[in-house]
Amino acid sequence: MGNIFSDRISDVPRSFIREILKITLDDSVISFAGGLPNRDLFPLEEIKAATAKLLDESGKDVLQYSSSEGYKPLREWIAARYGAKGLGVTADDILITTGSQQGLDLLGKTILNEGDSVVIEEPGYLGAIQAFSIYRSRFHAVPVHPDGIDTEGLRRSLQDFPVKLMYCVPNFQNPSGISYSEENRRAVAEMIRQGNTLIVEDDPYGELRFLGKDKPSFYALVPHNTVLLGSFSKIVIPSFRIGWIVARPEIMEKLIIAKQASDLHTNYFGQRIILQYLRDNDIEEHIKKIREAYGVQRDAMVSAIREYFPRGVEHTEPEGGMFLWITLPEGLSAMEVFNKAIELKVAFVPGDPFYVNRKNVNTLRLNYSSVDAETIRTGIRRLGDVLKSMVG
Amino acid sequence: MGNIFSDRISDVPRSFIREILKITLDDSVISFAGGLPNRDLFPLEEIKAATAKLLDESGKDVLQYSSSEGYKPLREWIAARYGAKGLGVTADDILITTGSQQGLDLLGKTILNEGDSVVIEEPGYLGAIQAFSIYRSRFHAVPVHPDGIDTEGLRRSLQDFPVKLMYCVPNFQNPSGISYSEENRRAVAEMIRQGNTLIVEDDPYGELRFLGKDKPSFYALVPHNTVLLGSFSKIVIPSFRIGWIVARPEIMEKLIIAKQASDLHTNYFGQRIILQYLRDNDIEEHIKKIREAYGVQRDAMVSAIREYFPRGVEHTEPEGGMFLWITLPEGLSAMEVFNKAIELKVAFVPGDPFYVNRKNVNTLRLNYSSVDAETIRTGIRRLGDVLKSMVG
Repeated sequence: MGNIFSDRISDVPRSFIREILKITLDDSVISFAGGLPNRDLFPLEEIKAATAKLLDESGKDVLQYSSSEGYKPLREWIAARYGAKGLGVTADDILITTGSQQGLDLLGKTILNEGDSVVIEEPGYLGAIQAFSIYRSRFHAVPVHPDGIDTEGLRRSLQDFPVKLMYCVPNFQNPSGISYSEENRRAVAEMIRQGNTLIVEDDPYGELRFLGKDKPSFYALVPHNTVLLGSFSKIVIPSFRIGWIVARPEIMEKLIIAKQASDLHTNYFGQRIILQYLRDNDIEEHIKKIREAYGVQRDAMVSAIREYFPRGVEHTEPEGGMFLWITLPEGLSAMEVFNKAIELKVAFVPGDPFYVNRKNVNTLRLNYSSVDAETIRTGIRRLGDVLKSMVG
Repeated sequence: MGNIFSDRISDVPRSFIREILKITLDDSVISFAGGLPNRDLFPLEEIKAATAKLLDESGKDVLQYSSSEGYKPLREWIAARYGAKGLGVTADDILITTGSQQGLDLLGKTILNEGDSVVIEEPGYLGAIQAFSIYRSRFHAVPVHPDGIDTEGLRRSLQDFPVKLMYCVPNFQNPSGISYSEENRRAVAEMIRQGNTLIVEDDPYGELRFLGKDKPSFYALVPHNTVLLGSFSKIVIPSFRIGWIVARPEIMEKLIIAKQASDLHTNYFGQRIILQYLRDNDIEEHIKKIREAYGVQRDAMVSAIREYFPRGVEHTEPEGGMFLWITLPEGLSAMEVFNKAIELKVAFVPGDPFYVNRKNVNTLRLNYSSVDAETIRTGIRRLGDVLKSMVG
């Protein structure tokens, strides 16, 4: 047989992160490369109890096929929680997805034609770059700064191109850890309000704030121009792959068609267990525990960086989430640092995969959520040794 | 905002079946419309035990993110089972998918460019029509007969068009219930062997044979030109959404990239429970029970049809699976029959959604797996009354 593949699949970068994760399976490597939540915080006993209760009470009901939209009482729970935070969302505005990643795929399916313009943050979330690449979109990278997206860059992109989607992670961004300030959000919302651009507001980490106070969601500021993505992966457990999209009815109708064609429906057993867990436990208390733990881990990383990294290496100071971003002195390749770091048994993700059109960059991502404070210090010290040997 | 949708999404039919299923939520309606396995046969106690054991023994391991390829021991189990049936498959040839439906989406993603030719059975599986429509393929419908696909029609399509995919359900096809004879399979395999067409062999029902003997898989006859789709939905439980694709390495490499972009990985908790269940129970015994039950239900439907349906109405006689196909006298619209049948509280799926370019057809699908034998008789009698009132 000759080449039978579609043009689109050749455009999609294989996840470099997943390749790195294979290297870091070696237990002697301290890995800041992953994007994993801290497993010590998984509510194992509560999930056990919820599962047993569910199977006892609902039995075979939870083993059958279910609806494409997702289990309605779970969607009602999610809607009510948004309501408590002042967002007007009903169960019908919510589609349960197989993780937030599927939300991105469904949005690509329903909205992007080949060559359509998509604004993406620089650096930006690799999973979004992959998902939209499948639909052969044209990316316009707009830099992010410590207080949010570059409004001048965004304004130029919106003026010069018919931007269909603007993808962003305004809270504790992956990969940089930065958050958009309230002022930045309002400026972006004003630019978006009158146009034909849909904001894809991806918010897997929004609940994980350990410093500062919450900022308004784009879905609150410009609901008509925003779809909002959420997930249980970072606040309950990831292995069930349960996320959701919030979208207005015209968009929802198309998303449901795309959902049917993509996987009929999301794992129903998991949806039921999650809801049982949410009903029988205090999720706010649980999230508070995660926040506190990540705050401690983040502080350990920031203070170790200050202590061990040489002058000229910059870092972000996230107020929540799981990641922190390092900028090396101009001209130093993070990929070269990675190769030396691996010899000293410490790993991270070089910045390259987070850019749509730059290579050999001088930036890198560090994850602190999956490593304890003591190991963080050891790992950062090792990485500091590598950097000292390479920085002027 | 103006129209922001992609061209592709407007081409995809919304699942008419799911719309019908909403009507049949009324408990007084006897529904042959669904495609549900018989829930009485779900191994509830065994799933309960497997889940409890898994959480006790593996704890937080089963709650974390996992690999895009799927849990390796589960893939090994599937490969070994194929091996026992004489198919040479390794764990690396298998990708775990979010139901077989996702297998179709991933194949569309990796293989189909806009306008690419796809052979589809007529009548054909609605889920495949939806999945491939997303990638704007051009369908060539080839009729199926009681002994398999129309080889002359297939030959013409393969000669006249550069067919990239041939989608088929050779065992107990959805919607018709027919199976390809061994002779038919060998004739198809010979046509495919030398060309550039990939057979997508969808086999969710292959294990559910209650009459006759197994026929060789296309994956056995022309492995290089076949991808094989399987699922636990019909032989264990559907709510976990766990299926798989078997494909050779060059195709697998692309499928994994598409999988990463689509949902990172399939529900890992469910993968682990299924494997625990498979290890602790005799799946062959369980499948035997399903076969026997479906055989009884199929016999009840066939004998009721013979008794209650008027002359001139034809039916298939499936040797396995969950569906049976009715052909009404020429000119009688199944949709009109449906509207009258609903008044008598009996439902089915009119043939229309199973055709890519025909409307108001005189065919319809009946499901017997989700209704017990006595209810089947009652429902078929009601449907017979409707038909008698409409057939000259």
